[in-house]
Formats: sequence, C-alpha cells, structure tokens
Amino acid sequence: MNVRQYEMFELRLNGISGAGPVLPEAVTFRNGEKTCSVPAFLAGETFRVRFMPETAGTWEYTSADGSQSGTFTCTPEESTKCGPVRAEEDHFRYAGGSMYRPFGTTVYAAVHQSDALLKETEETLAEAPFNKIRFLVFPKFMPYNREDPEYYPFFLKDGCTLLPGETQGGVCPFDVTRPDERYWTKLDGFLTTLRKQGIEADLILFHPYDRWGLADMTMEECLLYLRYCIARLGAYSNLWWSLANEYEMLGSRGYADWDAFGTLLAEEDPYHHLISIHNIIAPYEPKKWMTHLSMQSGEIDRIPLWKAQYGGMPVLIDECGYEGDIMYDWGNLTAEELVHRFWWSVCRGGYCTHGETFHREDEVLWWGKGGKLHGKSAEGIAFLRSVLEETGEDVLRAGALSADDPNGGVPENPVFARAMRWAGEMYRERVLMNLAPMRIAGERHVLQYLGHHRPLFTELALPEEGSWKVERIDTLKCTRETVLEAVSGTVRVELTGEEQTALLATRTA
Amino acid sequence: MNVRQYEMFELRLNGISGAGPVLPEAVTFRNGEKTCSVPAFLAGETFRVRFMPETAGTWEYTSADGSQSGTFTCTPEESTKCGPVRAEEDHFRYAGGSMYRPFGTTVYAAVHQSDALLKETEETLAEAPFNKIRFLVFPKFMPYNREDPEYYPFFLKDGCTLLPGETQGGVCPFDVTRPDERYWTKLDGFLTTLRKQGIEADLILFHPYDRWGLADMTMEECLLYLRYCIARLGAYSNLWWSLANEYEMLGSRGYADWDAFGTLLAEEDPYHHLISIHNIIAPYEPKKWMTHLSMQSGEIDRIPLWKAQYGGMPVLIDECGYEGDIMYDWGNLTAEELVHRFWWSVCRGGYCTHGETFHREDEVLWWGKGGKLHGKSAEGIAFLRSVLEETGEDVLRAGALSADDPNGGVPENPVFARAMRWAGEMYRERVLMNLAPMRIAGERHVLQYLGHHRPLFTELALPEEGSWKVERIDTLKCTRETVLEAVSGTVRVELTGEEQTALLATRTA
Repeated sequence: MNVRQYEMFELRLNGISGAGPVLPEAVTFRNGEKTCSVPAFLAGETFRVRFMPETAGTWEYTSADGSQSGTFTCTPEESTKCGPVRAEEDHFRYAGGSMYRPFGTTVYAAVHQSDALLKETEETLAEAPFNKIRFLVFPKFMPYNREDPEYYPFFLKDGCTLLPGETQGGVCPFDVTRPDERYWTKLDGFLTTLRKQGIEADLILFHPYDRWGLADMTMEECLLYLRYCIARLGAYSNLWWSLANEYEMLGSRGYADWDAFGTLLAEEDPYHHLISIHNIIAPYEPKKWMTHLSMQSGEIDRIPLWKAQYGGMPVLIDECGYEGDIMYDWGNLTAEELVHRFWWSVCRGGYCTHGETFHREDEVLWWGKGGKLHGKSAEGIAFLRSVLEETGEDVLRAGALSADDPNGGVPENPVFARAMRWAGEMYRERVLMNLAPMRIAGERHVLQYLGHHRPLFTELALPEEGSWKVERIDTLKCTRETVLEAVSGTVRVELTGEEQTALLATRTA
Repeated sequence: MNVRQYEMFELRLNGISGAGPVLPEAVTFRNGEKTCSVPAFLAGETFRVRFMPETAGTWEYTSADGSQSGTFTCTPEESTKCGPVRAEEDHFRYAGGSMYRPFGTTVYAAVHQSDALLKETEETLAEAPFNKIRFLVFPKFMPYNREDPEYYPFFLKDGCTLLPGETQGGVCPFDVTRPDERYWTKLDGFLTTLRKQGIEADLILFHPYDRWGLADMTMEECLLYLRYCIARLGAYSNLWWSLANEYEMLGSRGYADWDAFGTLLAEEDPYHHLISIHNIIAPYEPKKWMTHLSMQSGEIDRIPLWKAQYGGMPVLIDECGYEGDIMYDWGNLTAEELVHRFWWSVCRGGYCTHGETFHREDEVLWWGKGGKLHGKSAEGIAFLRSVLEETGEDVLRAGALSADDPNGGVPENPVFARAMRWAGEMYRERVLMNLAPMRIAGERHVLQYLGHHRPLFTELALPEEGSWKVERIDTLKCTRETVLEAVSGTVRVELTGEEQTALLATRTA
C-alpha cells in the first residue's frame, strides 16, 4: 500500500472497545528511528486510527495490543508547497519548503449548512484567491444564523433534550463520548476538499455564538473533545488549530483554561499544527504553545508592535471588518476599504483575512454560511496575492520595533531619540503609527504602500547597491506600470494623485 | 474716551526709558475694586501700555511713577460671542457667554509674507468657515518656505550677522531687547483683522523650522521675549498662546523649559488666555497651566482617552494631516478624508484643524504662506460647522472613559467587564477604538457619525423620553434629509449604503 508524503493513512481497529471517544497511543508507527504513537477515535461503531507520514519510505505499524500490524510505503511529494504550514520566525513555510503567505477568508458555519450549500461554497473557493479559511466545529447562533444544524458533533446525553428558545441554560446537554459520525464525516469531506484545493483549514474549536449548550461544556468534556479532534483531524496536513473565536466572550471559560487547551494541543498533537486564539478586545497573552497571533483589530499599524510583544511570531489580522452592508460595524466596509486593509497589513509585515456580509433576505451571507461571493474585494485580494507571490522565497519584512531597531524602520534622528526618552513606550507606537512608512523589504524586493496618501510624486528609498526596476501599482484598478528602470538609492517616483497606490521595486541586477 | 468691553485701550508712556523691551507693572487700571497692573512694551522709540477691560464702566489708570493718569469709559458689548475664549470643562466658551466651537485652519508663516499676500490671506479668511488660525511669531524655514522674511521680530545683536546657508550654528544672533517695530506692527495688523473677523489667533511662540537662530535663544532671552508678547499682545481678546509647534523638535530646549514658559504665561498674562503646546510624537504631560490639549495625531479615536488623561480638558486635533498632494504624508490627504477627520473628531468629543498643501510651482501653499484656498474640504467643514452650531448652547459630549464611565459609552456588558479585568488598560483603548460609536449627545441633540461604515440601515439609540426628529446627513454632498419624526428610544434608520453618513437627532417635544 502506498500513501503519499503528508497525506493520510487510515486504519480500522478490529475488536477494540473502550469508554469514550478516544484511545490514547492506540497504534505506533515506525520508520527507521522515527516512531509515532497515535490515538484512535470512535467513528460510528468502531475505532480508527489516522496517521500522516512526514517522511518518505517504509512505515511499519503495530497496535497497542499487538493484534494488528502491517506496513505501507510513503512516496515522496515533489511539490515544495505541501505538508503542514509552520511558523518560521515572523512568516510561514510549508513543511515541503516553500514560503506560505496566507490570504484567508471566513465562512464560520460552512459545515452546518446543507450538502448543496456546502458544495456551492467549495465551488466558490475553487475559483477564489483564498488559501486559508476560518470556520467553526460547532454550529453558530447569531443574527443571520438562527437555524438548528442537521447534525450536531455529539449525540445528546441520555435524558437530555434541547430546550426551545435562545439559550440552553448553562449546561451542555451533549455527550462528548458519543460523536455523531454523520457530522464528523461531513467535516472530513470538507477538510479533504480544502486539502485538495490547497486551502489551509483554520479550524475554530470553541466559540460563544451558541444556544445549544456547546459553549457550556465542563473542563473535562472540553479536554476529551480536544483529544478527539487531535485523533480524528490531526492527520490532515492542512489543519490549523484556532482555540477560539473571541475567547473573551465564552463566559463558561476562565482565562487559564485557554492555556490548558493550548498546552494540551501542543503536547499531544503529533504533527505540531499551528495553534492560535482569536480575541474580541485584547489578544491572549503570549504563550509557548502559540505559533502565531490571530488578531481581531482594525489597528493594523500595530502589527510590528504585536510582533515584538509576541516574540517575533507571525501576525494575522484574522478579523478587521468584512466587506458588506449589514448594520454591524464589523460587517459594512466597502470593497476598497477591505482591499486597503489587506495592502496595509501586508506592508506592515502581517497578513489580513477576508469576509463578506452583504445583507440578503435569504440570510445566506458568505461569512456565515458560504454560497457565492457577491462583493468586489476578492479581485483586489487576488491581485495583491499575485504581486506578493512574485517575490518568491524572498522574505519581505517591515522595520521591526525591537530592541535592535528602536526606530522601527524610521531613519535615526536625534529628535526621535529625544522624544523617545521623554515619552517612553508611547513613542514607539506613535512613531510606528505616524511616521514609519508602510513598507516591507527583502533581498531583492521593496514593496511600499501609500494607503490614503495621494501625493503627486514621492521619494522611494532603495539600496545603493544593485540595479532596480520600480513599478507603480494601482491597487484598486489592479494595474502595474514600470516607471523607473536601472535605478538605485533614493529615487523620485511620479505618482497619479490617486489614493491606494503601491510601489514595487525589484532588483534586476 | 470710550473703549468697548474686551477691546483694547492703548497708552503711550512719556519720558520713560529702561533697559530691555518690557517694563513690569508700568500702569495700574482700576474699576471699583478691580485693579490690574500691566507691563509696558517698547514700540519703536517709546514705551506703550495696552489694556483690555473685561468689565464695563469707568476705568482709572495711573502710571507707576505717577506721572500719567486718566480715565476711560468701557461700554458693554452686547453680543455674547465676545471676549476671550476660555475652557469650560471639555469645551470652550466666550467670556461673553456663548459656546465657542473651534473650526481652525493653519497658515504658519502668514505674517512673514508680503503685504499683498497677507491681504489676500485675510480676504480668503473672510469667506472661509474658519474661526481659529494657527500661525507663527517667528519666520519659517522648511520645504516650500525657504525665503528670508522682510522683517525679523528683533534687530541683530551688535556685531552679529546672519550667516548664509541653512543654519545659524546654534547661537541666536538677534537682540531680544530691541524689537523691530515694523514686524510687530504687521503682526498687530493681522491680529486686529482676525479679531474683527471673529477669528481666534492661536499664536505659536516657538518652533523648530528655523535657520536664523531664533530657535537658539537662551532661557533668559526666551523669558524676555514671552514677557514682551504678554505686554504687547495680551490685550487682544482673540489671542491664544501656543507654546510651540512640535515642541520635541526644538533641540535647544529641555523638557522642563516648556513648563517654565507655561507657568510664566499663566502667572503673568493678566487675561488668562488659553495656553497649549503642540507635539510631533508625544503630547507634553498634563500641567496646571495647560488649558486644552493641542494634539498632532491621526489617532482620532483616542480623543476620549486623552480627555481622561488630561483631566477633562478640551482636545483639539490641531494637526491630523492636510488636504493636498505634496510628497509628505502629513500633506497629501483628499478633501473627503480631511472632512472625514473633522466629523470623526467632533463625534469623538473633540475638534479638528484644517490645513491645505497642494503642490504649486510658485510655492504659495496655504498652510505655509496663505493666499487662496484651492481645495474642497472647506465646504465640508463649513457644512459641519453649520450643523453643529444649530445645536446652540447644548453641550454635546462623547461617552467619557472616566472612572465613572469605564465603558466609554458602550452599554454595560459582562463580557466587556471580564475582558477589562483580563486586559487592563488595553481594554479601555480597544473598546473605545473598536466598539464605541462615534457619537456625541446633549440634552436635545444626538449626533452620530458612521465614517467608513456604510450599512443599508442602522439602529440609533435615542432617549425614551421626548419626541425626536432624525435627519440623515450626507457629509460629502452636504445634504440633510429628515427620515424620522416623533420617535424615541432605539429606532431603525434606513441608510443609503454610502460612506461618511451622519445622523442628527433633535428633540422636538
């Protein structure tokens, strides 16, 4: 039997029973000196084991009781855009070796919709520019999302029923030890489709928009649920763990609970998938298990500050408002504004995430249920992605506000030094937010964005070394024009007086 | 002799001589139990005294040596929009009693231009919506402003000359004891015109854009200069003291010097004109002499935070970028963006200031030299001013982030309370910047601005009491439309899906 590197080997365990949905260390996989013991998970009436081989070659496996064993061959994946995405300093890289630059979208309750709607969502994703999607394990209850799902992740506890009305009353009626295979099969199908489409699944494990009591599990239930997710879903190479959406809003959870969840995932996930936690107001404090910062914020200028505060990890603005026209402030930005926030995020050294919330009488809004895209921002995001991917493996960074670079990319200046002495921490923020250009640079590329500034001309600082080409980019019309060739050092660039212009300089010699 | 209340009485002192440009307590004015001793200032070859009577009735005066005395009658001013503007809690009021809402502009080097250009500036101001102007005492040296002025405020010290080139070398060559009457007469003329036009003169006493050594005065020279300004200019009812533009950039000054200057003005200015200091990065710490906060910042959402940090004083965003198209980020906003920042500032409980920087080959940019306005933001600012002035004496305030109102106008919510506990100070900022509406409200008015949000409809929270009319305002087209009448409580308002919309609710019964 052959399994491609980073794809999934699955084994049905015969004649094994046990309490609860997970059996720890059920099967051990070996390839030379590499060994990996993975848990089994309850799938309907039987237990199964899934394993993602990260090394090509022959793998042997043996079940814990010795009753089942065998081998399979892992064939090497030749693409470098494969395997789990991992954080490398402040950016991401596929295990296969290529840079990964997230251009995500959001369809919270994708898997709780009808098969037909989920299929439509998948078809839309196939044409869209997104390579990451944020979505929920549990169903969603909030405006435009009031329906009960067809299946829940678990069967009800014996004697429990779902109460009518808006709230379940603070007790979870579901039995975490009895997963509903119909739900998990659907989730499996979506994860498989996303993997084939090259889309990372940023899976949100807990969230507060709940009427069914799924936000009210006990700590013990939560840990069991997480272990089930590891056992069942960990072998998907495209999986990311998002502990929560808006963690502060989960009234059932104490602050330290999240640390326990993150620690469990970091210790027990054999594949070390990315782990983050998403906030409504204040990001969760930096923790060892956290691989990147998943921010909800419109304060995009702060990306380099957060990067410094979080030990240099990558920063994703996973929620900065959505393109749409609904009455909530988080859901009524123009396409131009959302495209602006994407360029702004990228040119501050981070990434941004898309969502779409146009009011519809049928309540099928992309951000909640998927379906079709109706907005215009995806085009601008696709264009940004194409521009950025042209920079290949060149790591483009913004000036960091670190101890090594207290000026955050702003040229050394005695005035700022004096102001820093007087104003302390405040200085660093203000310099960043007001004075540092929106600019990232690598070995062979400089990308600078002008945002809402619209001068007739500007000065672009390039290295003195080498020969550079400069393109003027209209980020709204999605056009590029070479305006300078064979230049170096600080050069004057003629502009159009329009907003949302960018400049890309590429070293040509 | 008659002098109208808050206008200026001037007296030439005969046969008095002295070292330096100021004679302290040169003349004492009396009106019943009120007395006021004012300094004299050197005007050409003679000393003069100016006095602004704040009380109607008969005033007697006597010079310190008893050689000159007399009386004059102060006739009452009937308008309530008269006299010095003073801070009252977080807003401003004329001494005459009316609310004063600043809608300022900026012409830094207005008085250093030719008489013809200054006259053109005055004519433009006569038609413009501005009731405050920021400008410099000393000439300005920076891009678009490279010319030497015709007159300097002082004659050169004996033996000193102005060096050619860009810098004077750190020593002030001017003799502060010998004012050049030609300069000060021109300044008097401009202040007089502004007073007639109902425009407050926000006079900037020190600034760093200098090549002539005026930024390099010794502490002793600075104090003498300030006393000259008090003696000569204090009797203008429309005068405000701005200690500095971008105080941090004055390399010759230590941090504490500004406190000494502010203290001197607060103690020695008989009329207690407004005093502020303008920053480039971090605002100067709160001080007893400071009457309002003069901020340079684009972080307009922070107005309520600053208000809380500065003891509830008024906040003016005196520099948030200018309408224009020059290469500097502070000078290339669209008209729409500057109008946006005005509405945003007002609906966060502060005020904003205009400036215009369109590139011109003749280098006559409004922000630097005056002349004509070429932009479009003044129209939008005029419209905002007219809307706001309709609210009369109703004090409209944003939710304050004070100990009494930790939620900053955001409805009480246990989630936010928990987040505050976890996130500390950061919470307050984030709530303000992300969750609190841009809204000010008084007894009979609610003004709410939607900025870059553009929903199809929204909910507007009005008091349950009374009967209210709601107007929908297009802040860019400068149009108003009544969309609801005789409503109260939280009401749904249909919107257009366009950005930069505002809602004004007026209590009609």
